[in-house]
Amino acid sequence: MVRTVGTPLDLRNIHVNDPFWKGEMELVRREVIPYQWNAINDRVEGAEPSYAMRNFKIAGKITAARKEQGAAYKEVIWPTNIFRPIPEDADHMEDRFYGFVFQDTDFSKWIEAVGYSLLQHPDPELERTADEAIDIVCAAQQPNGYLDTYYIINDMSKVFTNLKDYHELYCFGHLTEGAVAYYQATGKDKLLNAARRFADFVYSKFGREEGQIKGYPGHEIAEMALVRLYEVTGEDRYLELSKYFIDERGQHPYYFDKEHPDEAKRHGDAEWYHYYQAHRPVRQQDEATGHAVRAVYLYSGMADVARLTSDEELYKACLRLWDSIVNRKMYVTGGIGATNHGEAFLYDYELPNDLAYSETCAAIGLVFFARRMLQIDVDSKYADVMERALYNTVLSGMALDGKSFFYVNPLEVRPEACHKDERKFHVKPVRQKWFGCACCPPNIARLVSSVGAYAYTESDDTLFTHLYVGGTIEKDYSGTKVVWDVDSDLTGSGKIKITCREVSKADGAARDMTLALRVPDWCEFYNLNCGPYPHELKKGYEYISGSFKQGDVIEIEFKKSVRILESSSAVAEDHGKVAVSYGPFVYCIEEADNGRDLHMVSVCTDASKTRLGKLTIEGSEVTTIVLPGKREKAKTGALYQAYTKPEYDDCELTFIPYYTWANRGEGEMRVWVNR
Amino acid sequence: MVRTVGTPLDLRNIHVNDPFWKGEMELVRREVIPYQWNAINDRVEGAEPSYAMRNFKIAGKITAARKEQGAAYKEVIWPTNIFRPIPEDADHMEDRFYGFVFQDTDFSKWIEAVGYSLLQHPDPELERTADEAIDIVCAAQQPNGYLDTYYIINDMSKVFTNLKDYHELYCFGHLTEGAVAYYQATGKDKLLNAARRFADFVYSKFGREEGQIKGYPGHEIAEMALVRLYEVTGEDRYLELSKYFIDERGQHPYYFDKEHPDEAKRHGDAEWYHYYQAHRPVRQQDEATGHAVRAVYLYSGMADVARLTSDEELYKACLRLWDSIVNRKMYVTGGIGATNHGEAFLYDYELPNDLAYSETCAAIGLVFFARRMLQIDVDSKYADVMERALYNTVLSGMALDGKSFFYVNPLEVRPEACHKDERKFHVKPVRQKWFGCACCPPNIARLVSSVGAYAYTESDDTLFTHLYVGGTIEKDYSGTKVVWDVDSDLTGSGKIKITCREVSKADGAARDMTLALRVPDWCEFYNLNCGPYPHELKKGYEYISGSFKQGDVIEIEFKKSVRILESSSAVAEDHGKVAVSYGPFVYCIEEADNGRDLHMVSVCTDASKTRLGKLTIEGSEVTTIVLPGKREKAKTGALYQAYTKPEYDDCELTFIPYYTWANRGEGEMRVWVNR
Repeated sequence: MVRTVGTPLDLRNIHVNDPFWKGEMELVRREVIPYQWNAINDRVEGAEPSYAMRNFKIAGKITAARKEQGAAYKEVIWPTNIFRPIPEDADHMEDRFYGFVFQDTDFSKWIEAVGYSLLQHPDPELERTADEAIDIVCAAQQPNGYLDTYYIINDMSKVFTNLKDYHELYCFGHLTEGAVAYYQATGKDKLLNAARRFADFVYSKFGREEGQIKGYPGHEIAEMALVRLYEVTGEDRYLELSKYFIDERGQHPYYFDKEHPDEAKRHGDAEWYHYYQAHRPVRQQDEATGHAVRAVYLYSGMADVARLTSDEELYKACLRLWDSIVNRKMYVTGGIGATNHGEAFLYDYELPNDLAYSETCAAIGLVFFARRMLQIDVDSKYADVMERALYNTVLSGMALDGKSFFYVNPLEVRPEACHKDERKFHVKPVRQKWFGCACCPPNIARLVSSVGAYAYTESDDTLFTHLYVGGTIEKDYSGTKVVWDVDSDLTGSGKIKITCREVSKADGAARDMTLALRVPDWCEFYNLNCGPYPHELKKGYEYISGSFKQGDVIEIEFKKSVRILESSSAVAEDHGKVAVSYGPFVYCIEEADNGRDLHMVSVCTDASKTRLGKLTIEGSEVTTIVLPGKREKAKTGALYQAYTKPEYDDCELTFIPYYTWANRGEGEMRVWVNR
Repeated sequence: MVRTVGTPLDLRNIHVNDPFWKGEMELVRREVIPYQWNAINDRVEGAEPSYAMRNFKIAGKITAARKEQGAAYKEVIWPTNIFRPIPEDADHMEDRFYGFVFQDTDFSKWIEAVGYSLLQHPDPELERTADEAIDIVCAAQQPNGYLDTYYIINDMSKVFTNLKDYHELYCFGHLTEGAVAYYQATGKDKLLNAARRFADFVYSKFGREEGQIKGYPGHEIAEMALVRLYEVTGEDRYLELSKYFIDERGQHPYYFDKEHPDEAKRHGDAEWYHYYQAHRPVRQQDEATGHAVRAVYLYSGMADVARLTSDEELYKACLRLWDSIVNRKMYVTGGIGATNHGEAFLYDYELPNDLAYSETCAAIGLVFFARRMLQIDVDSKYADVMERALYNTVLSGMALDGKSFFYVNPLEVRPEACHKDERKFHVKPVRQKWFGCACCPPNIARLVSSVGAYAYTESDDTLFTHLYVGGTIEKDYSGTKVVWDVDSDLTGSGKIKITCREVSKADGAARDMTLALRVPDWCEFYNLNCGPYPHELKKGYEYISGSFKQGDVIEIEFKKSVRILESSSAVAEDHGKVAVSYGPFVYCIEEADNGRDLHMVSVCTDASKTRLGKLTIEGSEVTTIVLPGKREKAKTGALYQAYTKPEYDDCELTFIPYYTWANRGEGEMRVWVNR
């Protein structure tokens, strides 16, 4: 039966001190969160303004006026567009909504990251700033609970009339996620209550009853956000609403057809709602299609609802969709969504490296989905994907100094193409400061600062260790509180030492306690030393059980070796090429280390020839992999000429972890290298 | 000094009987021209209507009414769009303009092909049909000479107000080309006179005088059309107007800025007119950029004007642009314009095979440009490119049965991508019946049926043989008329026999006569037997001179061998791959002969292992090239796995001429094959 076998570790019960992750979290705390706060207040020079806080303030004024004047308040209306650009005369902006329809979420993701960060690193000033921001946001809420500035400012009569394109329920979902996180971190419930009132309003408006809207979000996230709200409040109706959105999605006749009859007429009855994953009921879907971020957000919500309602059929759909992604549509970096057309999944095995989309947010969504699948079935295959996406594409999304970001994470770059070939304009050779559509930077911030919730899940009697993020962990084994010190050097030596620092037997009885340690897919050999306790390997986890005592030490060492990988032959793009990985990291070659024209080099496929090295990139020391290679001598005479046998120069190729690429200026890069 | 060293052979002086080209011309005559006539009269079921003749008829009615009513005639006006789609109720179409703004050219290209065809194959019924069509077209002409149905029907007050996008001067140019051809073929001057009156009107409107428009065509062709009109009429003002358009193009301030101030404001002063080759004065251009068809049409006109006005500076620009194309931006098939974004040239050496655009019309334009360069400098490098484009991309544009056409000519196709990957939707895996924007099929028709004008040029004392299209040729050597029988088997054995059938010494005196025979770039060895006459190789041509006598036989045999080609190392896309050619034909492998997953096969690069074969494709017997190859055994386990040494099965790879691909249904195809 589908049921919960693990819940994420409450972030109050983990204090991260992992050398690798602590650094990433500090970057988020010191760089990203303050930068983001400036960005959402339009104070970053040279960056596209967000307008997020400005919109909330204007909405607040309108809400106040409305409360005073009642229904007589005149609505401000203009032709609605998905994006309202910067006015030419920025000094004379009107009291109108500016930016994208989903601009509110800039705040929501920021407050979520702030919440997680405060848990790891209390900061009264940041908390005060956050509280003030929350005051501004809550002031915009309508008496009925509605809280989306685009409609509050523009025209309340249009609320929920364009679910397909206007991201209203997406804004609702993000607000809810942010509110839950901030509440969990601080215990302050002002924003949570606002989210609840908004949720109650949504609940009242959507459903199968007479007079209710039989619709669902154009951009998913509300599904999983409602589950979080349910889990924190215990209110069944939020779970019910999530399940409703999931079950209603893709039903015939299409709700989006009803909402947009002209478009529907134009497109006929073909299954053209793939982009929205609304082409057929989700239970009947078996291929991951359409906008990749939306897709994995939806699947995450589906897994949540399947788990909480023991819905076998829905879970089977999740299994099929998981299989579709990870076995046919995922880059070796854990990136998904191969095409910029619709930021979407391509067909099976079509994974272009240079034209890749592989949006940072989509990899983040895949981490969400993987964690939720792990909550149902503790199988390391889910954690393997989670790790792959997290250590490679998600981290690639942020510069090593935390100051610039990738939206798109290609696996092959020639900078000239990014500048001159329109088909590759979405691929940037260096990270950008901020985007008008700023989904990725704050999404990285909220994931990195909550990484503990992905590293560990727990059941009553077991602590599941998925990612080995080092830190101090408190685990309540049915009343017995154990404090574990996880001393992890996963990204370095591969050695993990877990010490039982404290056992507080609440009821004095000895208990069976279990520690489940994941064995990563990249590890062929490992040493486990768990002293007197028995261990058993199940679905890629070593289960160590016993009555742990203070001072117990469990050690596991994952032997790391350089792995030369190849794709399935079905991936034409990668044919004749190999990728290199080491531990959780996928590697790449860059022009900075290997010169230009990387298409002319080939790498020795004998991993035993590897020499490990060190390199400092933007202040971070990384392990390099040096392999023998060959560089074909260039023939640059005529454009076409009679073939002659190529000649080669021996060379050494220096590989760096993919997530560290493009931290040394513009240059060529390749993950898949000719063999 | 830049001057004319050759003019195309007057088509009245060549009767083609070449086994290869006669077949192609017959296809055009029997299939394309009648089909096209039906198409431009909207009588082809299942094809997008052209509306061309319908628009002319409506324009004719309007013109008649206007003549009757004088200026009081009310203009029909509606918001103008570049394309007016089919009305929902096709039975109740209004008397309005339908189709693309350039739809008139469907007729113009048709009448041009008809003209050439009538020369080779008199056909009174076709000529009657053509005369009737000309009556319809001429009836639409305004009293002032103007003749573009889009504006005649819609709003004459808008004439010449949108040169950038509305193809008015493009329609004028094509009409002129058609009129000249029909006049040359039949001696009938009704359409020619209409074109002259239109040209006179254009001449009066454009120029640097007060009150004249200082503009130039958005889509070029008028430049070379005006030169043809000048050459047939001897009127200097047409050459002058062509030169004006060329010289005015790209001058600062930009005319298109003046025409579209809003757009100009949006784009700033950056060089964003590359698409139109109007980013800077043409004399300063040194890189082929923008829309490829427009570009080569412009360059053709530039070469014409440079030649006729002995303009060294303009000729140097032509040389630079030629170099840019053929040494850095041309596919091995002679295709140009690598990207569908703007149907344009990409940057140097960026020649994607699967995403290629390589429009048929662009290859045709390259043939035009090459012939014009040959008229200035008889260097076989121009004819080599002309041949490459003609025998490969141009012919690929038409099915072997003459019934369907390619707009786009990719060098690598996986049909699944064409159906499922939006970035490749422009690539069709099989030819289409007709296009709404039907530039390519009639463009093939007019080129194929006038191929003699590309195969031969002449000066007073020399007949230049560029392409060895077999036939009977009359050449006037300064008064001495010689009839040559060219018996060519270039596409077969490579043997050409040229017999002097007749010599009529007009003045009784012996004369120095020369026959210049091109030695193709693909030929390493050839045997020339020119009897008693001396010969000399200059710039890739064997010049044979003497007082030819009746019965003289000159034989040249071009030894053909299979050539394994590679690209410059700068073309990353082709790295590790080779292409195969034989004679003028570039070859490819198709799924029909070699199975699926062509990325898994590699070919032996030792040409001596070749076996020639025969294959009948759609009724045509073609020479195949069979080479040993290897097929890598597929590994289809996981999406990513540890690399293992590949295993191979030996196989034979069958190559067919590129122009015959996709005549056996949908399947994979590759020109560049792994080595």
